[in-house]
Amino acid sequence: MERCLVSEVESNLDKTVKLQGWVHRIRKLGKIAFILLRDRTGIIQCVINTKEVDIKDLRLESVIEVNGVVKKNKDTFEVQVDSLKVLSLVKEELPIEINTEDIEANIDTVLDHRVLSMRNEKVNAVFKIEAEIAHGFSEYLQTQGFTEIFTPKITAEGAEGGTELFELKYFDRKAYLAQSPQFYKQMMVAAGYERVFEIGHVYRAESHDTKRHLNEYVSMDLEMGFINDERDLIKLECELLKYIFKNIKEKCPKELKLLEVEIPELQGELPVMTLQKAIKILREKYNKTDLTTDIDHEGEELIGRFIKEEYNSDFVFLTKYTKEKRPMYTMPCEENLTHSFDLIFRGMEITTGGQRIHDYEMLKNSMIEKGLNPEDFKNYLDTFKFGMPPHGGLAIGLERLTMNLLKLDNIREAEAFVRDKKRILP
Amino acid sequence: MERCLVSEVESNLDKTVKLQGWVHRIRKLGKIAFILLRDRTGIIQCVINTKEVDIKDLRLESVIEVNGVVKKNKDTFEVQVDSLKVLSLVKEELPIEINTEDIEANIDTVLDHRVLSMRNEKVNAVFKIEAEIAHGFSEYLQTQGFTEIFTPKITAEGAEGGTELFELKYFDRKAYLAQSPQFYKQMMVAAGYERVFEIGHVYRAESHDTKRHLNEYVSMDLEMGFINDERDLIKLECELLKYIFKNIKEKCPKELKLLEVEIPELQGELPVMTLQKAIKILREKYNKTDLTTDIDHEGEELIGRFIKEEYNSDFVFLTKYTKEKRPMYTMPCEENLTHSFDLIFRGMEITTGGQRIHDYEMLKNSMIEKGLNPEDFKNYLDTFKFGMPPHGGLAIGLERLTMNLLKLDNIREAEAFVRDKKRILP
Repeated sequence: MERCLVSEVESNLDKTVKLQGWVHRIRKLGKIAFILLRDRTGIIQCVINTKEVDIKDLRLESVIEVNGVVKKNKDTFEVQVDSLKVLSLVKEELPIEINTEDIEANIDTVLDHRVLSMRNEKVNAVFKIEAEIAHGFSEYLQTQGFTEIFTPKITAEGAEGGTELFELKYFDRKAYLAQSPQFYKQMMVAAGYERVFEIGHVYRAESHDTKRHLNEYVSMDLEMGFINDERDLIKLECELLKYIFKNIKEKCPKELKLLEVEIPELQGELPVMTLQKAIKILREKYNKTDLTTDIDHEGEELIGRFIKEEYNSDFVFLTKYTKEKRPMYTMPCEENLTHSFDLIFRGMEITTGGQRIHDYEMLKNSMIEKGLNPEDFKNYLDTFKFGMPPHGGLAIGLERLTMNLLKLDNIREAEAFVRDKKRILP
Repeated sequence: MERCLVSEVESNLDKTVKLQGWVHRIRKLGKIAFILLRDRTGIIQCVINTKEVDIKDLRLESVIEVNGVVKKNKDTFEVQVDSLKVLSLVKEELPIEINTEDIEANIDTVLDHRVLSMRNEKVNAVFKIEAEIAHGFSEYLQTQGFTEIFTPKITAEGAEGGTELFELKYFDRKAYLAQSPQFYKQMMVAAGYERVFEIGHVYRAESHDTKRHLNEYVSMDLEMGFINDERDLIKLECELLKYIFKNIKEKCPKELKLLEVEIPELQGELPVMTLQKAIKILREKYNKTDLTTDIDHEGEELIGRFIKEEYNSDFVFLTKYTKEKRPMYTMPCEENLTHSFDLIFRGMEITTGGQRIHDYEMLKNSMIEKGLNPEDFKNYLDTFKFGMPPHGGLAIGLERLTMNLLKLDNIREAEAFVRDKKRILP
């Protein structure tokens, strides 16, 4: 007999079905036992006559197969079990209780027992939604003529110039794990693809321990040729986010309901503000006077609050960051400013982007200005000698976006297997 | 004015358009010059009166913007240029000639000048097709209830047990780059997702230099719970390949034509043969007598030829590899054999897969039998204590599949930026 999924039970009333899944709960009432069976599509009650079917060794989270008839009991469907087979028997006490609405344990315990904690329905839902965020990103960009690329994570040249790289022994040489696909995505624009995207791991050897940082995370990157300036990227990102949100509403209604998450409505254009104006507002309205050329985490939170109150928006693009605060490849504008932006979502940065320099001499001089040696970037720099269109791009941290969208407390809740300073296991 | 893509020129007859792209070819005929302009969608002829529009500094591969009127000249469309603007001027001789049908250079030169070589139409087409192979993989599995996962590439436990790992300094500890997402995809099955897939980089510190191996490549992995045995995986892979091939035929007709590639027809089921039978055929039909418990590269080639001749198939699944030749997590069957398979495509292995052990004690004993210490795999092994369904999976090397499908000579032609023993740049 073919397996019947829990989601298919309702369409099999009075028929005999075979179900397979985990034992979610066991309740005994005299000779009758009720087992909640859980598979990837949901949970169903199985009714067992313990005189006929032996379940005395059965513990929670064992994997079982039951054969039985689908019945309707008032408004709910259940399965009257004829036979039960254990596919994988749990013999020990579970180290963590997971079949409650929320797991009552701290984040470290949750991460230590990651496979079990992900079986909790709410925790499980997070990663289904995360997958659909990534699909939305990929699907929308494909409709806009973008080509997906796969660029190396083992590199010789550090993308942003220097610090916070994981070092690697590559045969008889030193190499590094890529901090971003920055150079390679620009090179793929120049290779004639014009519009490219990548969803892949990036590595930051930052030793700080915050609720917003991971040392290995998934970056959703795009790069686009033949733009006028950063405003083309801002426009693209608005449409991209609309598509991503529409996609998860369609694909994950059950998961969103379970997590009680409301997806923000994106109508029309999102607010855009220069960094300079943001700093002025922070000074005048919030008496935050310590900012001059950059914004800090507290400032982002306050601007997020301001935008919510004044524009009823969860999002704001901050533009024109200073040259000093942006990497050497950023296109400058006016005096000391750049064609760059961050996207702040509910008070936290989820995107950094901007127009890039496409002129060879300008890029070389920008490296020198930043104290970098152009010789160290020869392969990248040479690209700009042989026809590089005006271009720019952006990156969205997948776990960051998931965290903020689902209002999780800690970015670690948005990564299946966390890599931070303390953790390389499981 | 909005940019008009080359592919949109035909629908703009007699209208003024703005085109942007690279200078593919220049031909002068008295006062008239013909420039072939190339963008991501194609090539178009631009006709220039050099008395009115100055192009004397223009070299091949410069990036330009032209305004002009679309005209039809016999059967072909061209643009009568009114004005031309240089967006990025090439000032040097190109180090490699790319605007020929095929690049006349050896693979090292092609890889050294990767950005330029990818502008060649045929080379460019390879990576568009490769992207669509990956999309086909992802899309088909989504229709079958699979969840996409993103698992760590920095690991503490080596997946296959031991050798050929790249070592990494992870803060104050030693870590390794993942050889495969094997443990993590199994753990995601156990986490309740049941069916998962990942498209991501894997790392093999193998020092051999062949036309079929890379040290960093993209692995398309899947893992599926509640299977009966390896035959469920073989069935799934047949359908998966059908979908992938259908998808590239639909999405890349131009690219396939350019490369003169014929996509194999997959009708009905693909041939399946035990390894033991293959070895017998090799001995009896090809006088290849050196094989007993495994098959080598030459054997795969010969079996590929045999299957083509006897069954008119480009594919054959070889099954029941010996325990000795398969990793410790492989489900054994009969005496010394396993529920495993390879898929041979045109004489080369593109997939390894099989059913996995799901019983804790059996897995632990299998580790010990292989001379491994279960303590070294504690996190992985503990997963099997708390309810693990019968399961199995497979992996397809993206570059391998691309290489064989497009009949490329060297797997390096199927990777944009190659990582092999010699190469970490560009």
